[in-house]
Amino acid sequence: MPVVPKQNITQKNLNQSKNGLAFYELVRKRSMQLVIGLTPEDMMLQSMEDASPAKWHLAHTTWFFEEFILKVKDADYVSPDERFAFLFNSYYVNAGPRHARSQRGLISTPDVNSVMAYRDHVDDAISDLCTQVRDDKKELLDLVELGCHHEMQHQELLVTDLLHGFSYNPLLPAFSAPEPMSVRDAVPLNWIEHEGGLFEIGHDGNGFSYDCEMPRHKAFFNPFKIATRPVTNSEWIKFIDAGGYEDATLWLSDGWATCEREKWDCPLYWWQQDGVWWTYTLRGPQEVNLNAPVVHISYYEADAYARFVDKRLPTEAEWELVARDIPIEGNFLDDEVYRPLPTGPTGSSGPAASSNDALKGQQFWGDVWEWTQSPFTPYPGFKKPEGTIGEYNGKFMSNQYVLRGGSCVTPKAQIRSTYRTFFYPHQRWQMLGLRLASDV
Amino acid sequence: MPVVPKQNITQKNLNQSKNGLAFYELVRKRSMQLVIGLTPEDMMLQSMEDASPAKWHLAHTTWFFEEFILKVKDADYVSPDERFAFLFNSYYVNAGPRHARSQRGLISTPDVNSVMAYRDHVDDAISDLCTQVRDDKKELLDLVELGCHHEMQHQELLVTDLLHGFSYNPLLPAFSAPEPMSVRDAVPLNWIEHEGGLFEIGHDGNGFSYDCEMPRHKAFFNPFKIATRPVTNSEWIKFIDAGGYEDATLWLSDGWATCEREKWDCPLYWWQQDGVWWTYTLRGPQEVNLNAPVVHISYYEADAYARFVDKRLPTEAEWELVARDIPIEGNFLDDEVYRPLPTGPTGSSGPAASSNDALKGQQFWGDVWEWTQSPFTPYPGFKKPEGTIGEYNGKFMSNQYVLRGGSCVTPKAQIRSTYRTFFYPHQRWQMLGLRLASDV
Amino acid sequence: MPVVPKQNITQKNLNQSKNGLAFYELVRKRSMQLVIGLTPEDMMLQSMEDASPAKWHLAHTTWFFEEFILKVKDADYVSPDERFAFLFNSYYVNAGPRHARSQRGLISTPDVNSVMAYRDHVDDAISDLCTQVRDDKKELLDLVELGCHHEMQHQELLVTDLLHGFSYNPLLPAFSAPEPMSVRDAVPLNWIEHEGGLFEIGHDGNGFSYDCEMPRHKAFFNPFKIATRPVTNSEWIKFIDAGGYEDATLWLSDGWATCEREKWDCPLYWWQQDGVWWTYTLRGPQEVNLNAPVVHISYYEADAYARFVDKRLPTEAEWELVARDIPIEGNFLDDEVYRPLPTGPTGSSGPAASSNDALKGQQFWGDVWEWTQSPFTPYPGFKKPEGTIGEYNGKFMSNQYVLRGGSCVTPKAQIRSTYRTFFYPHQRWQMLGLRLASDV
Amino acid sequence: MPVVPKQNITQKNLNQSKNGLAFYELVRKRSMQLVIGLTPEDMMLQSMEDASPAKWHLAHTTWFFEEFILKVKDADYVSPDERFAFLFNSYYVNAGPRHARSQRGLISTPDVNSVMAYRDHVDDAISDLCTQVRDDKKELLDLVELGCHHEMQHQELLVTDLLHGFSYNPLLPAFSAPEPMSVRDAVPLNWIEHEGGLFEIGHDGNGFSYDCEMPRHKAFFNPFKIATRPVTNSEWIKFIDAGGYEDATLWLSDGWATCEREKWDCPLYWWQQDGVWWTYTLRGPQEVNLNAPVVHISYYEADAYARFVDKRLPTEAEWELVARDIPIEGNFLDDEVYRPLPTGPTGSSGPAASSNDALKGQQFWGDVWEWTQSPFTPYPGFKKPEGTIGEYNGKFMSNQYVLRGGSCVTPKAQIRSTYRTFFYPHQRWQMLGLRLASDV
Repeated sequence: MPVVPKQNITQKNLNQSKNGLAFYELVRKRSMQLVIGLTPEDMMLQSMEDASPAKWHLAHTTWFFEEFILKVKDADYVSPDERFAFLFNSYYVNAGPRHARSQRGLISTPDVNSVMAYRDHVDDAISDLCTQVRDDKKELLDLVELGCHHEMQHQELLVTDLLHGFSYNPLLPAFSAPEPMSVRDAVPLNWIEHEGGLFEIGHDGNGFSYDCEMPRHKAFFNPFKIATRPVTNSEWIKFIDAGGYEDATLWLSDGWATCEREKWDCPLYWWQQDGVWWTYTLRGPQEVNLNAPVVHISYYEADAYARFVDKRLPTEAEWELVARDIPIEGNFLDDEVYRPLPTGPTGSSGPAASSNDALKGQQFWGDVWEWTQSPFTPYPGFKKPEGTIGEYNGKFMSNQYVLRGGSCVTPKAQIRSTYRTFFYPHQRWQMLGLRLASDV
Repeated sequence: MPVVPKQNITQKNLNQSKNGLAFYELVRKRSMQLVIGLTPEDMMLQSMEDASPAKWHLAHTTWFFEEFILKVKDADYVSPDERFAFLFNSYYVNAGPRHARSQRGLISTPDVNSVMAYRDHVDDAISDLCTQVRDDKKELLDLVELGCHHEMQHQELLVTDLLHGFSYNPLLPAFSAPEPMSVRDAVPLNWIEHEGGLFEIGHDGNGFSYDCEMPRHKAFFNPFKIATRPVTNSEWIKFIDAGGYEDATLWLSDGWATCEREKWDCPLYWWQQDGVWWTYTLRGPQEVNLNAPVVHISYYEADAYARFVDKRLPTEAEWELVARDIPIEGNFLDDEVYRPLPTGPTGSSGPAASSNDALKGQQFWGDVWEWTQSPFTPYPGFKKPEGTIGEYNGKFMSNQYVLRGGSCVTPKAQIRSTYRTFFYPHQRWQMLGLRLASDV
Repeated sequence: MPVVPKQNITQKNLNQSKNGLAFYELVRKRSMQLVIGLTPEDMMLQSMEDASPAKWHLAHTTWFFEEFILKVKDADYVSPDERFAFLFNSYYVNAGPRHARSQRGLISTPDVNSVMAYRDHVDDAISDLCTQVRDDKKELLDLVELGCHHEMQHQELLVTDLLHGFSYNPLLPAFSAPEPMSVRDAVPLNWIEHEGGLFEIGHDGNGFSYDCEMPRHKAFFNPFKIATRPVTNSEWIKFIDAGGYEDATLWLSDGWATCEREKWDCPLYWWQQDGVWWTYTLRGPQEVNLNAPVVHISYYEADAYARFVDKRLPTEAEWELVARDIPIEGNFLDDEVYRPLPTGPTGSSGPAASSNDALKGQQFWGDVWEWTQSPFTPYPGFKKPEGTIGEYNGKFMSNQYVLRGGSCVTPKAQIRSTYRTFFYPHQRWQMLGLRLASDV
Repeated sequence: MPVVPKQNITQKNLNQSKNGLAFYELVRKRSMQLVIGLTPEDMMLQSMEDASPAKWHLAHTTWFFEEFILKVKDADYVSPDERFAFLFNSYYVNAGPRHARSQRGLISTPDVNSVMAYRDHVDDAISDLCTQVRDDKKELLDLVELGCHHEMQHQELLVTDLLHGFSYNPLLPAFSAPEPMSVRDAVPLNWIEHEGGLFEIGHDGNGFSYDCEMPRHKAFFNPFKIATRPVTNSEWIKFIDAGGYEDATLWLSDGWATCEREKWDCPLYWWQQDGVWWTYTLRGPQEVNLNAPVVHISYYEADAYARFVDKRLPTEAEWELVARDIPIEGNFLDDEVYRPLPTGPTGSSGPAASSNDALKGQQFWGDVWEWTQSPFTPYPGFKKPEGTIGEYNGKFMSNQYVLRGGSCVTPKAQIRSTYRTFFYPHQRWQMLGLRLASDV
């Protein structure tokens, strides 16, 4: 029973104007597109504390605009229900008592229809506010832009959380059309060399970025090389077949403990059937495509694999240094035509060949997030912003690792060469892969 | 968004014919009545492993008829989906691999509408089968009757599981009209005395009963007395105020450990506000009515309370010996008019006064289940039936205690004087109360 | 480094006078004998919350005499350390704040030598008190007797807790001489029949008993029969080989959950090596003797086994009714010669043959405790005694099952035909076995 | 009952010759000195998985020499017990199956005396080997040196593990003389400024270092300043009094979750009594000395404190850059006179005043380890060594943070300016404190 009418939106000049009401409307509509075809039951699923129901994502992103813009900037604003501030807050401890994160799946009321009405209500109010405001328009639009980026992050989570939720259903339902993905043949593994030296990395403050991408700062690099493409499923199966999941000496100590406790012997969602590897995807069960980049692996597995082939993971600075010269094109969530949704890595990102050596890299952008060996730490000179929004990234700066590049379910408008996402080293439910690096 | 159309069913002569198609239809329709007004989201709620989503209850009870009747007796029967046998099986290990019990809330597909269609499909097939069958009609009708009693058990669970699920929602939604219950004044606490001796208890095999109620057998009784009514909220508050929840010497050792670990200091769903006790009910938050019987207490609490007032809980045999002379009338789920549903104990069950001493007992029937001091064990000579249905009760005969009498959310047709229900001593989410007893 | 000098004690007329100073001295010396040859390190072992270090047992049994006798009856008594009351109290909540039970293995101070001095100190004081007291001598001697029985219970626990502690040491050390036990050939399995009727069971109050053995009361029995000997290892291996540990339908629901969670596939301490079953014992690793009674099984396993052979466990009343006519002789802890200690079941208890049908039973007494199907509940008319000593048994009357008959590590002086011991149905570290029964 | 005879060893020219038999003998004797006065019971204590019994430390360090030197270099070597290789291995997965780490406290056999004999046996064999070897003497001595550094690490752990084990004893025993420590008045908080730039850090390979201290590499520094002394107890109490443990916005997200779960409201071992803060130390309970550096705090607390005072923790590179110009003197484990042992921070390390600005720092060396904001990661170009010893540090490079400077229970001979120790951010049982830093 689809609860969301079919829509038909075309992306136009999206990248020309990320700051403004048009961008807001586009981002908001896209969230609605993501849930086309879902039943209210689907939108209730919460399969683990790390994941949230689709309904909650839709409500929480709306609450963000209400809490940080409407309640602050619009004296006349009236919430449809004051209690939503409690239900749909997430980690903003400052913003009031939270509803326990692990119990988001137990909120049946308000139902999906009420959440949709909440979205409409806030959209109208934001639209009015943006149209009418005269003073501090820049500050308002900056906050709207922040809210849009926040919502794009949740779009990716909405999709991966759904996949995780569905995976507990023995029927293994398909979120989108069950045809196999079309995957490009993997190019041979080559290396981009860099001679090192003293360079600046991080965001320079022109245009939108999250706080944690700044300040731009100098870092010294030894010479290094980085692979031209991510590790593929074909290569990963060699790791499995060679006993990679049974050889403790390949693993970090914490990784090995996790591997043993969780009984890992392949990536998340994989299983073997009659000698063939299968995987559960947004298109339902599919044979593992040997050419596609491996996905749904933890940091621990990525690190063990790199050691297995006598390489290492790149640092996030190395990754940024190389990738920032490569145009941001690839398999993202927001291609011109919204449907069918891209639903898995295709290996088709990036310039397949180029006369320019620096551009030979494949899939730096999109397809799979790439684990780096860099813990998520503050850049030199980082200052946590004041106030609730300041909780945004700084408080997560322990025990997590940085990934770079975006994935097939990342909205393209969200990605920059300085963008840092981060996950715990044991987590696997996102579209997480790896690219090798090495000292020279 | 109610997914179930309003219905208008009148109960007629229900008790005259529990064995037959008419009874089947009545029981099945009543399940549908229970979910009137619920959204698909409400019907997904699973708040703990002990509880199941409403949707699952509706599907599981249907599966019971499919698995044990249609698949066995009807060679032409075709299931709408063979996989339902896996999804909606419960504890019948024999009937095939089970879907993990704690993950019933993660089944979004099939959705509510599909489950409703499944119910219709099975109802049609059962109706046809009962109409057409010639041979072994008695065996068929006996199985149908068993399925009806099974479904009535799940009707009660459906309601109490919903209450538990809703209780995690900070909005504390009301399942039915939020007016306070009308509660009768509590009668003074008096005692029914019994001189003891050798008596038979248990079911004699005439008419329906569960296996565990048989065989009828002799038991010897010392003289005893049993209270004329259950313990009330007013009396329970005295226990709280006297420090009953802080005095370890009143408690069983396991009970005290549970009390400390769970930080119990009042019945489930209670809280204090400005000096007044409130409780969460199917009608939403309500002031605790001092005259109503206390409900949502564990065996451990019931046992501690009895010790506090220097009494004890009755044995199940004592309870049966006294109650079987009292007509089964009271606050049950199935009064003549189905709506509004009774949604909590009212203290109004039973003959308020009688010239016959043996009938002076109040609320033996309905309102609240009454903890007995008897562990749920096999009666002398009990034999577990062969086959899957034999798993029904025998395998639960450890660590649980017997309760007697039914509650305000028990279908009346389900209750007999020999009926034994059972729960673990720490459980509280059912409509569980207590009645005192004592040696003479 | 043995810390206890060798001693040479002969038991004389022990059973003639359990109430008195001579009995006290004998029981106290016997505790010291049990730890001959242990190092201070051995006496520190605590391998789980259910078990306690040997040092703690020696101190706790001493504290019992200090707390309930010396501090009450002897105005001049001075404790060597007032803090021992805190360290060595166990479950007597009334007697003051307890040291957490799971942390008894973390008490290095006081050391073993200090505990030995504590024992001497209390022994002297008890001896003086018993010699000097004039008034209330009966009450004093009754308390001393209770303390002696309490200490005998802990003697058994001391031995089984040590076995459990040692079992975590990969060296599998032997507590006593590593020669195999001498085991008598098992007699064929026969049945003692009983025609049932109304009988009295329980203790009549003449002589010592625990509170929970009283009051003596009438109970009605259906005809039944009970096996002439316990189930043997040979029979148990058939159960294993027939897949008993993999067939859920044999098990109670809670039992199956435990079996799966704990990955049980044989009794505790068993393992298979080159097709032969071995077991860890107080004599170190030994081949499983096929003739000996099976030991170290849980209630869940015993119950599943009985179902496997289409029998049942006896009730505790049935057991008592039959066993009370059989003389209490068998493989206990306190034979005339103290060393070598009996260290496992030998199958040698009881009259091997008799012209008297009622005496044909083997090993009712000693060798292994026998699980009954009876939950540990209060007898009709049971009243918990006032005061701290009243915590003794009543508070354990939930979730546990009664076992009867004593084991090879039970002091013989402790056993009566009415004696009820009790353990949780999942526990296995005691010397626990089973005997079959059946309806007639 | 002390099991170790008093010894009287004087340290002479220790730092002149860390590589050689004399150093070996000194280090080995010092381990024995640490356990003077301990009972066998004390040496069994294991209070958590992170900690090990003193007996295990003594045996494990011995095993290291046996496994990596004697079994490799000495063809005639015979172990006193081959099974020790299993019992006393630790995290060297390569070296064979391990005894479960959390069960080291359950090894009563071999007892302390046997472990002492094991030490003597290995000492004799090492002595003979070093005296007789001709070829590869340098490689042998390098391995001996590594074993000595390994043993020095365990000396520190032995002391802190004992403190943790004792802390569970309600008697709060004193490991050494119970007089209060003599603590120097805290100097005012000042700052050492550094103008930043490109510098090399890490070990250059001359002399002993662990693998993780290399390679020496370039790093770029922004200008920064670092405090002249660690944070004191007096300052920490202000943090407590200001609600630092209740203000989520000061904490990392993982830190706050830990703080709430563990109910932290002060450093480990602290409690308040009549308005005064007390702490449990190696000298037993002591009043918290306001002048001493705060100790037993986690990374999460250190980080929250720094945010509270609007500062930050230093990076490990900043710390090294400043500290390497300050002579390594301070409150360590190995002052000239061994007894009494230093048993807590005294605030007395380092040059109190100096005309040289760069040397103004206090307690950079000794007293308390100082948390840095740097996760423990491989230095650029780091390669894990081959073989078992290669497991040494590399496998711990996730989820842990670097601390610098050594503590009052660190052997002085162990410390270099490049020395990196590391702990998980939630751990507190080591001597862990903090020093503030800031951007300029």
